[in-house]
Amino acid sequence: MADGGSSEGAGEFHRIATYFAPLAKGADGALGLKDDAALIDVPAGRSLVVTADTLVAGVHFIGDEPAALVARKALRVNLSDLAAMGAQPLGYFLSLSLPSRIDDAWVADFCEGLREDQDAFDWHLMGGDSTGTPGPISIAVTAMGHVESGRALHRSGAKAGDAVFVSGSIGDGALGLLAAQGRLPPGPEADAVLTRYRLPEPRVRLGRALAGRAHAAMDISDGLIADLGHLCVASGVGARIEARSVPISAAAAEIVADAPDLFSDLLTGGDDYELLFAGPPDMIVEAGKETGVPLTRIGEIVEGGDVLALDADGNTLAFARTGWRHS
Amino acid sequence: MADGGSSEGAGEFHRIATYFAPLAKGADGALGLKDDAALIDVPAGRSLVVTADTLVAGVHFIGDEPAALVARKALRVNLSDLAAMGAQPLGYFLSLSLPSRIDDAWVADFCEGLREDQDAFDWHLMGGDSTGTPGPISIAVTAMGHVESGRALHRSGAKAGDAVFVSGSIGDGALGLLAAQGRLPPGPEADAVLTRYRLPEPRVRLGRALAGRAHAAMDISDGLIADLGHLCVASGVGARIEARSVPISAAAAEIVADAPDLFSDLLTGGDDYELLFAGPPDMIVEAGKETGVPLTRIGEIVEGGDVLALDADGNTLAFARTGWRHS
Repeated sequence: MADGGSSEGAGEFHRIATYFAPLAKGADGALGLKDDAALIDVPAGRSLVVTADTLVAGVHFIGDEPAALVARKALRVNLSDLAAMGAQPLGYFLSLSLPSRIDDAWVADFCEGLREDQDAFDWHLMGGDSTGTPGPISIAVTAMGHVESGRALHRSGAKAGDAVFVSGSIGDGALGLLAAQGRLPPGPEADAVLTRYRLPEPRVRLGRALAGRAHAAMDISDGLIADLGHLCVASGVGARIEARSVPISAAAAEIVADAPDLFSDLLTGGDDYELLFAGPPDMIVEAGKETGVPLTRIGEIVEGGDVLALDADGNTLAFARTGWRHS
Repeated sequence: MADGGSSEGAGEFHRIATYFAPLAKGADGALGLKDDAALIDVPAGRSLVVTADTLVAGVHFIGDEPAALVARKALRVNLSDLAAMGAQPLGYFLSLSLPSRIDDAWVADFCEGLREDQDAFDWHLMGGDSTGTPGPISIAVTAMGHVESGRALHRSGAKAGDAVFVSGSIGDGALGLLAAQGRLPPGPEADAVLTRYRLPEPRVRLGRALAGRAHAAMDISDGLIADLGHLCVASGVGARIEARSVPISAAAAEIVADAPDLFSDLLTGGDDYELLFAGPPDMIVEAGKETGVPLTRIGEIVEGGDVLALDADGNTLAFARTGWRHS
């Protein structure tokens, strides 16, 4: 782990040695964060899977959240990308930029959060960079995992006739963002969706079980409708889903019962970090059973390029904000 | 390459498709930046080498430099870490945070710089993340290379009796920083050291040639004296160098002739990105010949833990600012 070069003070060395180096214990290739780089031997017969996602205070989080929660979310949005490829987490690199007002207590709490989700997902800090910034807190994570060669999940690969599934429930991320902005009435439902927004559940075990079974997969970060669009573009297909079959949480159901206008936000809002995937239903149901993750079939892949969401009467729903942008 | 999730606008998609996706062409595993992660097959018999270094405007660069230069420096400080481990560059992940005032012309120029140093060092963009920020420009790079298993260079491994070498010349980085701050008299010498500060030369080919030959190596980012201290601590040895044998550039010699007080800055200032290494002199000289990189023997590794710099009379030099902090 580097100290950001000559521009940094002794404080960066102290923080790396005190707070970060212990997180690299158990990862041989991290070399105690004391070398210029980490050295990683990818297991034979496996491909390396690498993804990078950054959280910036004022953009991806508000900034007054507990540091441990912010740390865990930074890891989890990356773990979700590994899950979407069917990969087993291996280790991560952390590039942390902190304003001078951030004290050691914040760093200690942040590292406590990293520790918790290292243990939960059986991976380690492998290296990184710590630097000061005149701007907001910025947390850039590059995450690595590995997957059996030839079995990685891709966005492309969906075929007409495939069933479309999602894991867990959809829309708590969007409602949680509203709660974080103080735009939902306070109460246990707002608390529940806020917790899920702050601490999404990356579907790592499910991703592993889907590898070699699903035809296409991705995680839902831009919103169900938008991401289904991305998957269909990548696969050169279309999709038809039934809006009423999209699984929502009990908290979301309560919130939408009081504010029906929010229903479309569930389908178009982001930050769910559930998996969206397509393939043969039998094999997919098997993966759900093996992992205990609730899976819901919401529609099917069709020929052509249209992504349609149908209401209970079979009419096409129009969304004010699909969030769907052709990539 | 991700768009930073639902918090980003369509502009991020546009920039990724227009400017960044072409940089991933030729890298199969980058999957056109269109999947959730990259998929990398490390060549058989090779270990993966991974390092991460971030540049923040206002900390690591001033902010008004040409975007292409900033891009190249961001790659080169990371390439220097790969070189220090003896690795062949493979690809990099870029997490870019840009304030809203940055326009597409800046991004286009930035990507032109990336392209130039992709071609120069035969590697590719493999993935990353693009996000807005209310703060300064931040460029987090995670760089990957590979090295023959068991042949990576480490900071540890130096033995009493080893010769200590540096590549190129030392101190232009420190003087270049002064020039960037307007603290050197203008002229061709100030221009020369400024250019080296802005665009260091990572010693990738030399690092490859030293792998399996040098006993210990690292790149000089914190300053020669400080980094020699780091290498000695990692190896459990001391070192004795002769200050007059440390190679300096013609421009640095001119500058120091006019301002002798700056001489110690050459030895203690950072940002040189030359290699510092120890080992058997014959094999090291061979590596220098193979690569055409000028190498200079500056001293030797000794028992004990002291790092001494001696003047022409054999007296120990004391530095006001060693920059050397035990890690």
